[in-house]
Amino acid sequence: MSKALPKRSENYSEWYNEIVKRADMAENSAVRGCMVIKPYGYAIWEKMQRALDDMFKATGHVNAYFPLFVPKSFLEKEEEHAEGFAKECAVVTHYRLKANPDGKGLIVDPTAKLEEELIIRPTSETVIWNTYKNWIQSWRDLPLLINQWANVVRWEMRTRLFLRTTEFLWQEGHTAHATEQEAIEETERMLGVYATFAEEWMAMPVLRGLKSPNERFAGAIETYCIEALMQDGKALQAGTSHFLGQNFAKSFDVKFVNKENQLEFAWATSWGVSTRLMGALIMAHSDDLGLVLPPMLAPIQVVIIPIYRNPEDLATVSAAVAPIVEELKAAGMAVKFDDSDHQRSGWKFAEYELKGVPIRLALGMRDLDNGVIEIARRDTLEKETRPIEGITDHIKSLLDDIQANIYKKALTFREENTFSVDTWEEFKAQIEKGGFVNAHWDGTSETEEKIKEETKATIRCIPLDTPEEAGECILTGANSNKRVVFAKAY
Amino acid sequence: MSKALPKRSENYSEWYNEIVKRADMAENSAVRGCMVIKPYGYAIWEKMQRALDDMFKATGHVNAYFPLFVPKSFLEKEEEHAEGFAKECAVVTHYRLKANPDGKGLIVDPTAKLEEELIIRPTSETVIWNTYKNWIQSWRDLPLLINQWANVVRWEMRTRLFLRTTEFLWQEGHTAHATEQEAIEETERMLGVYATFAEEWMAMPVLRGLKSPNERFAGAIETYCIEALMQDGKALQAGTSHFLGQNFAKSFDVKFVNKENQLEFAWATSWGVSTRLMGALIMAHSDDLGLVLPPMLAPIQVVIIPIYRNPEDLATVSAAVAPIVEELKAAGMAVKFDDSDHQRSGWKFAEYELKGVPIRLALGMRDLDNGVIEIARRDTLEKETRPIEGITDHIKSLLDDIQANIYKKALTFREENTFSVDTWEEFKAQIEKGGFVNAHWDGTSETEEKIKEETKATIRCIPLDTPEEAGECILTGANSNKRVVFAKAY
Repeated sequence: MSKALPKRSENYSEWYNEIVKRADMAENSAVRGCMVIKPYGYAIWEKMQRALDDMFKATGHVNAYFPLFVPKSFLEKEEEHAEGFAKECAVVTHYRLKANPDGKGLIVDPTAKLEEELIIRPTSETVIWNTYKNWIQSWRDLPLLINQWANVVRWEMRTRLFLRTTEFLWQEGHTAHATEQEAIEETERMLGVYATFAEEWMAMPVLRGLKSPNERFAGAIETYCIEALMQDGKALQAGTSHFLGQNFAKSFDVKFVNKENQLEFAWATSWGVSTRLMGALIMAHSDDLGLVLPPMLAPIQVVIIPIYRNPEDLATVSAAVAPIVEELKAAGMAVKFDDSDHQRSGWKFAEYELKGVPIRLALGMRDLDNGVIEIARRDTLEKETRPIEGITDHIKSLLDDIQANIYKKALTFREENTFSVDTWEEFKAQIEKGGFVNAHWDGTSETEEKIKEETKATIRCIPLDTPEEAGECILTGANSNKRVVFAKAY
Repeated sequence: MSKALPKRSENYSEWYNEIVKRADMAENSAVRGCMVIKPYGYAIWEKMQRALDDMFKATGHVNAYFPLFVPKSFLEKEEEHAEGFAKECAVVTHYRLKANPDGKGLIVDPTAKLEEELIIRPTSETVIWNTYKNWIQSWRDLPLLINQWANVVRWEMRTRLFLRTTEFLWQEGHTAHATEQEAIEETERMLGVYATFAEEWMAMPVLRGLKSPNERFAGAIETYCIEALMQDGKALQAGTSHFLGQNFAKSFDVKFVNKENQLEFAWATSWGVSTRLMGALIMAHSDDLGLVLPPMLAPIQVVIIPIYRNPEDLATVSAAVAPIVEELKAAGMAVKFDDSDHQRSGWKFAEYELKGVPIRLALGMRDLDNGVIEIARRDTLEKETRPIEGITDHIKSLLDDIQANIYKKALTFREENTFSVDTWEEFKAQIEKGGFVNAHWDGTSETEEKIKEETKATIRCIPLDTPEEAGECILTGANSNKRVVFAKAY
């Protein structure tokens, strides 16, 4: 057995890194800040993609694909957007290499310099709105409800697997509408889709809210977000949905004839989630033994491990397992029978715990004689022995139970780590300890900046469902009519 | 109604371009050589992806994701590979833009120059084998059967939508094996998967063969390919599967301990198909009215168009159509009821013909009175009127029939356009007219080059299933023991 993981309580950051690597989720590549998503990690991402894609389609969206390259001049067109992304752009300047005339290897061919540099898309608003210009003439062309699954590049100085990488995978929805109201509804609808996905599939409770102006997407009128609380008390922004107003339509001159026969700029939204969700998934549920995966996103939902002393026993156990596997698969479960013979069962137990497989079944000769099987659930680590007869129904409902339990556990954790404070001293003390901290804020960027400087906490969101409440800003004492959520964040 | 398409017989190239654009498949983007894949085109690509991905998984492969960027030094490591791709590489040299100090806009920040340039992957052998180095230690780690879905960039001077674009989407399989034999079997297995996909899903017959050394993938020992014949008599390479020997293992030092406890270099394959298949699909089947899609890849398999004079009639027809739509959907068909009221039915008929929808149903008040519906099939343009009762089963079998018929038509076309010639004069004349030309070749690259220079024809493949036959090279008269397939190609 390989050595134990670092404990969360001792070194949360190392615990996270080690789980990502040892559970075969991802690893750093030779290119600074870029990761390799390994098959086990990618299988989880594929499940996320499939679920999200189905939800996008169920809400009327279609997929398309737009170019990787953004001409530099496009980025310049929307001023705030340009400012927001210019500092982290990978820039293509040449289109050819040639043999090095002075020796071995290849050099950039200086004669193959691009007239205009190309940026690797950090996000695709500019390329897409430049395209929409030709697709939108009349209100009949609207709404345009398009999503793309793509890779994007933002040159980050400090990177961490899944949480912040130079290249990452994501989906970006870009919609165009005839009215402001419709665009706002779309922005909110997609926030709802993200929240539903986070809670129902990832078993991760999220706050729904608005970003403060400081934290808004560059070029947006309003940014909506979902925020989750990790086990170390830090927040993680898990998805954003932006109401872009007419900013990009104006920058790219996208006008349409409305029902009143007048020319008008189109209204825009964009929304995205990324492989960052993988980091959130890991940190939300896992424990000191490794990953804990919600059954709905687990590549392997049930692993079956044979207990045996010799090849004859293995053959007997395997024969008994075959119909169980068939039945579980027929009931729609992802099952693996691990009969590999170069690792002992104890090693396998630890390995599948590390990989977060929700249910482990173990079966030996004595169990067979008794017609029973051992069932271990990953979330609570509880074991029970049950008759093999009727096991499929039990496993199926146990998976539902685990899914619900993981969510409940995360929700309880969030509730226990959400605090309301009313003074600056309380605020500083609580932020230091971690958690979501509900506090009054005077609504100014200046105050937000100062709070960030002194405590590293930011406003994670202005929750959509918080009641109004008169109070005083924790820093300045100025009037406030609503608490907002502060936290340190990933 | 918009103006008619150019005819294939008059301007094949324009016919193709117009179909791609007017059927909403794709369009050129603002970035030279890069395309926007529009929702209707992308929906076909998604169906292709899903089918291929299922086939890859059924043959034991898993997906993963490797970085977009290739360090220049990686490309240099395998000499032939480097030579093959150096001339078409997009090169990232900087990682930041900044405000232009001399005026408006953004400039590349000269202080943010990369120490080593990064290439946008033209293919991922180098990045992946550099990673495999850490994943492969023992024969127990093999085989490694990994695929990735990704975008790649090859800087092409002359581009055409789908057929040759600077950025394209593809999948690339990269496998590692313990023995040469196993790697060759994998190479051939994946060629088989591609051929099955082309013939069963795309309804496009393909030749299976080996490439001549001139046409081999840069870095491969042997390149297998599938080749299809387009309606203008030109060939199109639709997929390739490469046996890479130990070339990349040697370049990246990937050794493993084999069962005999000796260190050995791993054996490699790679294989890919791309959005180029979209071009093949269009050119293989479409006619002067537009796209003809095989039902298995059609985003809309059945379109229903109401015939009516007034809103009351439309309401009556719609009510009658609702249960038909339900039944067709329940039987697994992709159905669209187009009740939009700003286009006439004649316009709709032409539009769905242009988009290649396999079956069109039309229903008016008189049909309703008679309990019948009009069925038009896109492939033969035949129409029939049938009782609504029992229509679902009929439509289902009609879709199968269309799928089979499209394949048969393409196969007949290929058979009628495959020729055997034995003299240089015959050869030149036939190549000029088009089609697959089976001819003897002396096996030298020199002869192949000369034939290409004089006729623009290349060896498309050395077919796997052609019997040996003594003969003389059409150009040099030297001995040959097998005919190979020549054609002009896309």
